[in-house]
Amino acid sequence: MTFTIESPASAGSEPVRLMVCTTCRAAGADADAPRPGAQLLAALGEALAANTDAGVRVVVEPVECLSVCKRPCTVSITAPGRWTYVYGDVDAAAHAGPLIAFATQYVATADGLVPWRERPEFIRKGVVARIPPLGRAAP
Amino acid sequence: MTFTIESPASAGSEPVRLMVCTTCRAAGADADAPRPGAQLLAALGEALAANTDAGVRVVVEPVECLSVCKRPCTVSITAPGRWTYVYGDVDAAAHAGPLIAFATQYVATADGLVPWRERPEFIRKGVVARIPPLGRAAP
Repeated sequence: MTFTIESPASAGSEPVRLMVCTTCRAAGADADAPRPGAQLLAALGEALAANTDAGVRVVVEPVECLSVCKRPCTVSITAPGRWTYVYGDVDAAAHAGPLIAFATQYVATADGLVPWRERPEFIRKGVVARIPPLGRAAP
Repeated sequence: MTFTIESPASAGSEPVRLMVCTTCRAAGADADAPRPGAQLLAALGEALAANTDAGVRVVVEPVECLSVCKRPCTVSITAPGRWTYVYGDVDAAAHAGPLIAFATQYVATADGLVPWRERPEFIRKGVVARIPPLGRAAP
């Protein structure tokens, strides 16, 4: 299950990859209940469809287990040459649209470092870890 | 401050990158005390020097803030085509040698997924997050 959207102006531009953990369950949830990650994926699909003029290519993809486990939904955002971030406590109902908007802010930076005051509150509070640009030259 | 080591047999092979957060402080530590990451870097330098026959190229590098903050030392391990991991609660005195050994296990796998039972206990317990191979083709 993968959603992609690409506005005409952004054809060929580098994509922002938004990975959604589809493994973790909400604490105390019924074993048969839809998993939070599946709900977030569906909400992101709707948010992407409503946001065709974003000017950036956003690729949303499900991944198996980001090993955070206790803070669903968990997502990771990355783009070439930029810091990779992992965020937890993402709410499918509240945060899908803001997450797509944040992805647009993120890819507009040279290094993925959106100024702190410009980050949405759920992004400020939800950070789990960050990793330097992996294409950075190793000695 | 960067340490590298490359055994003759591994010249040209892909490096394992071991990034050490040098920003976080131990809880309650004196502001003038050496930071845990600086101690781990020094210990990794010694461990690398004692491990020249590892058969892999290990690049240890300091990074500014992996945004974990409450679980020093924090490290991240990555290599081309492999899952990237972030680990916390790494102890400079106890874990430098085992961490270099684990880096060797890690790069020996095709995808960075060392079987659970073969992972050292501090690696099992310390996982903060993992991220899929970033070179993986996006749709």
